[in-house]
Formats: sequence, C-alpha cells, structure tokens
Amino acid sequence: MRSVIVYKSPELLEKVEKVLLDLGHEVKSLPKPSRSLESFDFIVSIGGDGTILSILQEVRRCPPIFGINSGKIGYLTHSNSTDFEDKIRIALKKFETEKFERVKCSCGDSDCLALNEIAFFGKERGKLTEITIKIDSEEVDRIRCDGIIAATQIGSTAYSFSAGGPVVEPYHPSIIIVPVAPFRFGWRPFVVRMDRIVEFEAKNPGLVIADGKKIFEAKRVTITKSDFPAVFFKRDDRIKRVFQIIRRIE
Amino acid sequence: MRSVIVYKSPELLEKVEKVLLDLGHEVKSLPKPSRSLESFDFIVSIGGDGTILSILQEVRRCPPIFGINSGKIGYLTHSNSTDFEDKIRIALKKFETEKFERVKCSCGDSDCLALNEIAFFGKERGKLTEITIKIDSEEVDRIRCDGIIAATQIGSTAYSFSAGGPVVEPYHPSIIIVPVAPFRFGWRPFVVRMDRIVEFEAKNPGLVIADGKKIFEAKRVTITKSDFPAVFFKRDDRIKRVFQIIRRIE
Amino acid sequence: MRSVIVYKSPELLEKVEKVLLDLGHEVKSLPKPSRSLESFDFIVSIGGDGTILSILQEVRRCPPIFGINSGKIGYLTHSNSTDFEDKIRIALKKFETEKFERVKCSCGDSDCLALNEIAFFGKERGKLTEITIKIDSEEVDRIRCDGIIAATQIGSTAYSFSAGGPVVEPYHPSIIIVPVAPFRFGWRPFVVRMDRIVEFEAKNPGLVIADGKKIFEAKRVTITKSDFPAVFFKRDDRIKRVFQIIRRIE
Amino acid sequence: MRSVIVYKSPELLEKVEKVLLDLGHEVKSLPKPSRSLESFDFIVSIGGDGTILSILQEVRRCPPIFGINSGKIGYLTHSNSTDFEDKIRIALKKFETEKFERVKCSCGDSDCLALNEIAFFGKERGKLTEITIKIDSEEVDRIRCDGIIAATQIGSTAYSFSAGGPVVEPYHPSIIIVPVAPFRFGWRPFVVRMDRIVEFEAKNPGLVIADGKKIFEAKRVTITKSDFPAVFFKRDDRIKRVFQIIRRIE
Repeated sequence: MRSVIVYKSPELLEKVEKVLLDLGHEVKSLPKPSRSLESFDFIVSIGGDGTILSILQEVRRCPPIFGINSGKIGYLTHSNSTDFEDKIRIALKKFETEKFERVKCSCGDSDCLALNEIAFFGKERGKLTEITIKIDSEEVDRIRCDGIIAATQIGSTAYSFSAGGPVVEPYHPSIIIVPVAPFRFGWRPFVVRMDRIVEFEAKNPGLVIADGKKIFEAKRVTITKSDFPAVFFKRDDRIKRVFQIIRRIE
Repeated sequence: MRSVIVYKSPELLEKVEKVLLDLGHEVKSLPKPSRSLESFDFIVSIGGDGTILSILQEVRRCPPIFGINSGKIGYLTHSNSTDFEDKIRIALKKFETEKFERVKCSCGDSDCLALNEIAFFGKERGKLTEITIKIDSEEVDRIRCDGIIAATQIGSTAYSFSAGGPVVEPYHPSIIIVPVAPFRFGWRPFVVRMDRIVEFEAKNPGLVIADGKKIFEAKRVTITKSDFPAVFFKRDDRIKRVFQIIRRIE
Repeated sequence: MRSVIVYKSPELLEKVEKVLLDLGHEVKSLPKPSRSLESFDFIVSIGGDGTILSILQEVRRCPPIFGINSGKIGYLTHSNSTDFEDKIRIALKKFETEKFERVKCSCGDSDCLALNEIAFFGKERGKLTEITIKIDSEEVDRIRCDGIIAATQIGSTAYSFSAGGPVVEPYHPSIIIVPVAPFRFGWRPFVVRMDRIVEFEAKNPGLVIADGKKIFEAKRVTITKSDFPAVFFKRDDRIKRVFQIIRRIE
Repeated sequence: MRSVIVYKSPELLEKVEKVLLDLGHEVKSLPKPSRSLESFDFIVSIGGDGTILSILQEVRRCPPIFGINSGKIGYLTHSNSTDFEDKIRIALKKFETEKFERVKCSCGDSDCLALNEIAFFGKERGKLTEITIKIDSEEVDRIRCDGIIAATQIGSTAYSFSAGGPVVEPYHPSIIIVPVAPFRFGWRPFVVRMDRIVEFEAKNPGLVIADGKKIFEAKRVTITKSDFPAVFFKRDDRIKRVFQIIRRIE
C-alpha cells in the first residue's frame, strides 16, 4: 500500500521507514502535513497528539492514522518510541480502523474542521465578551466570559478539560459546550448530541481557534458535525485509557 | 380510554377528573401510585417531579404520563395549575409520546429502576468510603468519597447537578458518573453511553438510593439500561427548557 | 473641602456638583482621572466599578472615594442615581472612611497597583503557558494554563470569581491565587495572607493586566501588599452586600 | 518534663518511650486519649491526623503535640516512623510551639471544639435540607443541600476540600463555608475571618459532626473562635507542605 510518514522530529524516522518497507509498503516521508496526505492508503504520525491534529487540519478525506508517540501525553497515538514496531505490524495486518466524528466550524466564508474543539474568544485580553449560544437555531443562553468552547467527546480531555468540562467517553458522539472564565454566579458545561447545530455569536469580532491550530476572526461561528471524520487504526482500550490519560494531566 | 390520576394533594383533582370525563375517558383516581397503574392507557400526575418519580417506582411497563405541576420546579411535567386544561386536551388529541430510558440497578437479589439516578453512599455519616468504579467490567477508577451517583441525562438536572455534574440534553441517552464530596485532588464527572454497564463497589455495605425514593443496602451495585423506559406525552421544547429549568434551581 | 468629581457620562454631573456646592465644598469635575486627584480632599465617582478602578490606577495616595453607581453592578459604589443625594450628605457629615489594601505588582522596571487583581497570561491565544508560582520566594506549584490571577479579597467577586475562585469577605486581607483554564487533573484556588510575596514566572514574556486596566509585558511578576491602600467612605453593610452582589452576577 | 504518648497502634511505642526517657522526661502511654492529657507538659501522638484529632477532642487546654505519622497522609504530624528520633530530639530541645485556632460549635446545651471543621447535615440520606447561613447574626444565604461545612484554614485540606473548598494557608485564620452537594445553579465557597460568628439553621434537626469524630443532633449550630487553640511543636515548612499534601490526596 502507499503509506506516508509525517514526523515532528526525525529521530525515529529511519526505523519506521524500514518497518514499513519490510512489510512491503511504499513509503513517503513529510516533515509537514499537507492536503496531499488524502491520497495515501494510510498515515503514520511520529510526534504527539499535536502532530496528529496538524495532519487532520490538512485532510478532509482522512486515511487511517497510526500514531507513534514521541511526546508526553498521547491520547490519540497507538504506540510509543519503544514498542511501535510490534504495534504497527499488528495494526497493518488486521487493518481494523475506527472513525471519530469531527466538527465543522463555519464562520462567514471560512470554514475548518476540528477533532478536539472550536474555541471562540473575545479579541481583547482581559475584557469580557457576551456570547449568545444557540442550539438548533434556538437561543438557549447568553453568557459573559473570556471565551467559549464547543468540544467533541474526543476533545473532552483537551482544552474543554481545562475549562472545567466533563470527560465524555470516545464512543459517545457529543458536543460539549463550556465557557472559559464565565463571569456568572451559576453556569454548567452542557453536553448535547453531535448532530445538533451549535452557534456562538458575539457583538464584536472574536477569535476562532480550531484544535489550537487554525485561527480566524469572526463575530459568529456555526458548529456542525462534519462529513469527514478522523480515521484511526483501532485501539481496543480507549475507554480505560481515558481514565489513565486524565490522571497524567499534570 | 382508561385513565388514572395520581395526585399528591386533592386541590385540582375534581377539575382534572371533569376534563378527562368530558373527553370521554374512564377515570380512576389514586392518592398513592401502585403497580396497578401499568394497566391503564395513560396516567395524569398532579404534583411535582417527585410525584412522577414515585409513579415510575411502581411501574415497569409505563403508560404515557401527563404531568400537571403543582410544585416549584417541574422538569418532567407538561403544564401548571392554570393551563392544564388546554394542554391536556391537545396532548390527548395528538397522543404523541416519547420515551426516556431508565436505568436498572441490581444489587444482590434486589433490583429497581430509576429515571434520574442511582446514588450509592457509605452508611456512616462523615466517613469516607472507597468506591471502585467499573465500566463494562473493567475497573476504571477508585475514589474515596461520601458517595457516588450514576445519573441519566434526564437526571443531569437533579442530584447529579448538586454534585457538580454537567447538564446533558434529554435526547442524548447517557450515564453520568459523578462522586459526592470526593476526597481527591483531581476528579471529573464522566459521561458514558447509556448502554454501558456501570458498577460501583465498596468494602462495606452502603446505601443505594434510587431516584431519592427507594433505599437498599448493598456492597455492590450494577447499573444497566432498563428494558422499561419512562413514557411521557411529548413536549417539543425540552432542550430549551433544560436551560430555563437549571436557572431556576435556587 | 476641595472635592473632585470624576464622571464616566455627564448625566448626573450637574446635580452632584450642586449637592457638593450646597454643602460648602469646592468642586472640580474631570471626565478622565489623573494623578492630580491625589491632592483633593475627597473624590466623587459617577460611573460603575470600572470608573473607580480607573481612578485608583492614577493615584497612589488615595483621597476617600464616594461612588455613585450609574452602571449595572456596583460593588465598590455607595449609592445609585436616585438616592445619591441623601447618601452623599450623610457620608460627608460623618466622614468615616475605610481602607482596603491594594497589591503592588512589580515586573522589571514597571510597577502598578491593583485593588482587584493582577492577571498574568501567556501571549499567544490558545497556547498553554507553564507558570511557576512562588510564595515568599519558595516555589510551591507549577501549572500549565491560559493564565493565572492574584486577586485581593475585594477582587474575589471580579475576575477571580470567573476563574472559579472563592468569595472572601472584604475585611479579610488576602491574596487569592487562581489559574485560568488550568490543564491539570487536580488544582484548587489558594488563599494566602496579604503580606505574602507572590511571584509568577513563565518561560516566555506574557501579558500582565492590572484591574483590567493596565497592560504590561513581562516574564515574571512579583505581587506584594502596597503601601497605598484604596480609601472609601465607609459602608456598614459590606459583608451582607457581597452575598447580594454575587447573586446578581448573571 | 511530664510527657504522654497517645498511640493508635503499639508498633513504635517502645522506641518512642525510650527516646523520651533518654531525654530525661517522665513518660506515660495511653491507647486512648482522655481529658487527663491536659495536665501533661507535652503530648506525642503515634498515628495519623485522625489520632491527633481524637486527642484534640479530649482537651481544652492543649499541651504542645508532636505527631509521629504512621499513616498515609500526615498534614498535622512532624515526622514519620523512620525519622522521628532526630526530629523529636530537635523539637524538644528548641521547644518552639505554634498555635492554631480551633472553632467552638455550640448547639443547644452541647458544645464541642474542632480543629478542622464542623459539618452539619440533614438527617435523612438522599433528602435535601434547606440551611440558613448567618454571619454575625445577619442572614446572608439560604441553600438547599445535603449539608454544609464550616472549616478552619487547617481544615481546608480535609472535608472542606472534598466539598470543593479552596486551600487556605495555615497562618491565615479563616472560616470557610462550603455546602455539600448544593442543589442550586450558582454557589461559591465563602471565606471569612475567624472572629466572625457563623450560624447554620435547618427546619428539622440535623447531624452535627465535629472533625469527623463527634456527632450531635441539632437544628441550629453556632460556630465561633474557641479560646482553646490547638498547640503543636513548630514546623517551618507548613506553607510549602500544604501544596505537597494536597497533591497526595488521591
């Protein structure tokens, strides 16, 4: 098959190339992800969750990703720098994959995808922004805050976690709406089904940040389920793993 | 049709009976719910959410419930003491219903159903209990706390809310696991799909409380999706309503 | 006595001037606060808490402030637009004042004062910053977050409140240390005595914001008790008022 | 001097006795604390924080306590089972002590002291209790909850911590008011000066629990600063230690 390696740093690159070649695959290696990744049969990412999120920023149709973790916390990865050889062989042999829905964020003419979250902030640091929240076109809340997050269940252990959101299991497609530093006596994170349409609107243009990677300016963002899920080689231990991962967030 | 009224206090009883008789239904009235409710075509509850939860404790097969709220907060009800006449007519004419999954709690020989939550506490007040949490038979956490809750999404605005749980929309079948007064530096509410098997286990027998109504003693409880959902006449505004309701919790 | 009025908008200005003149005081009026305020015998602020915070940014030696609230929430003010006449007369007759300690924030060559809080943020939006916290020169914690706040007890109902800090009574001089969006499983707000020296340090220069008014860039900030407290005309109901105020934060 | 050892389990007892005798002190050993402890010159506690809290339940006038930790977390202790010999020698040579204010809880005819906290609960498990909170005789809040805690700053790492309270440094005498499982949209922990009078009142008699050790029944409790502080041999590292301790709460 046609494989492509995306690497954050080159340490493991040669070894990984060798494993893939040994297994009879074509191999191309890229230090930076690009749209061209879409045309490969599978992707091997060497880096951390950030590397995988960067890859996902580039692709709509997503070939299955196998992640080798060379960083600290690897929630999205499949192996680390010592056990990747075995794990990659097994994964390619079985070739079982799983999809995780991404959200699509539309703001004006721009749009983008996110696996973890769309964050929407006031532009000026240290100033409250009043944000209106709509679900399926119905205004449900209005809150003054630094910003607000619409996270997927996969993103529930990322930025949404920092803002006080709950942890949602990876196989429960959800949008978690959680404000950042809400100036209000009462507030709660909200969890809705992923097929809801979530809208955030502010009076002045704010910053929209997708997966911590892409930044737009907009007064209003619409978040919907994307038609282009992220695709990964299967892991059987994802639920248990969530509980392990969050304990390591320190 | 054969209807039954369950009432907490008798103020509205006569009026409600009259409305139902006018509409051509047989009417029976009960101050206390019992298993016999199962055999009716629909139930009208006069009271608050507590009255509906008491009804649900008695029935497995659940006829559609229409709730007239005579209390403070009515999350599960359909009308209040002034507008029930119109609302009940419309509801019975359309006869559109909706189901909300309940959880079944098994502990030893006993079992029970809950629409809101199963809470599991240490018996002695003021003593920590170490509770092991399993999901689908896999131990995922162990936490010292006063107690722990497994709430449904419907129950996310009830006791789980007090314990710091997120609000989950009514149409997103979920189990929310949230400890009460956890003695631990880090913890989070967990949201899993409702078809997971959730188990709590303590070293010593604790108290199991279903919907604040039924109390057992057990060392270990297993929570699964019940085959007997709660059935209600349909409301179209449930999602928006959640946001209104929680703001009134004061 | 020599009085000065600082006003955010001119609606009430004439009336207030008249009251002060009637009481035999010299009156000067300023749309913007400046250092010159220090030389007056007392200050009347027409505006909200923000106007008072702006006044306090300009003065070290602080003449007693009387606040007329023309905004939404007035935690620091003494009267509103309808009852100010009586309240101002009584306040000037008694001339009882009270002091609330401010914190001094030193970063490199710059320093500034704050009544509410010093906030320290990473510069780049959407990127975690690792911040080291020292108390009395001793490193006590290190946390990855969007930013961190050192608030006074007066500021406990302001930005610190948004970030999840506790409410501390106005007469309990304290520094509340609370991170904004901490990416960590466990964290808590910390409350220390106001005579502690609190330091925040990041690897890269961040933004320092004093009372939401002044912005610096620095890698490291030191927060100590200032020698220049804020001085207000006395209110007897401040403790009860805190509880009323926070409920109105919505 | 006349010393007394209170021990939870006898393992270290002989060794500790020998150290004290070698240093020329009279030694008495007790498996259970009693009022008689008041008459000794100092107390050595072998056990955990619980043992020290039990000692404190028995004494009003408190001789200085030296704690040898044989348990898990020792926030109040001075040494562990391996280093106690050196530490005890140094402590007795210097004989520097420090006081931590306790709170006195009065309910009807009964009263008791607490170093950590007074907790007040509804009697029936799983039922909300409405509790009125007064500070210095002024009603400041009313909240429906499982219970409520008035903790000292020392107790801020104990039960108050579980309920979501902030961590307050040991040398900042404070009362922290924090509800357990409050059924309300908005709530916050409150921190007041320790010389405030805090009152909790419920409609029906509830349970009052002092330091997790003593249990009363009462409808109303008054919490004030006690005239009988807890006295300990001095530790120089208490502030830093708080931060270490809370991280071990797991």
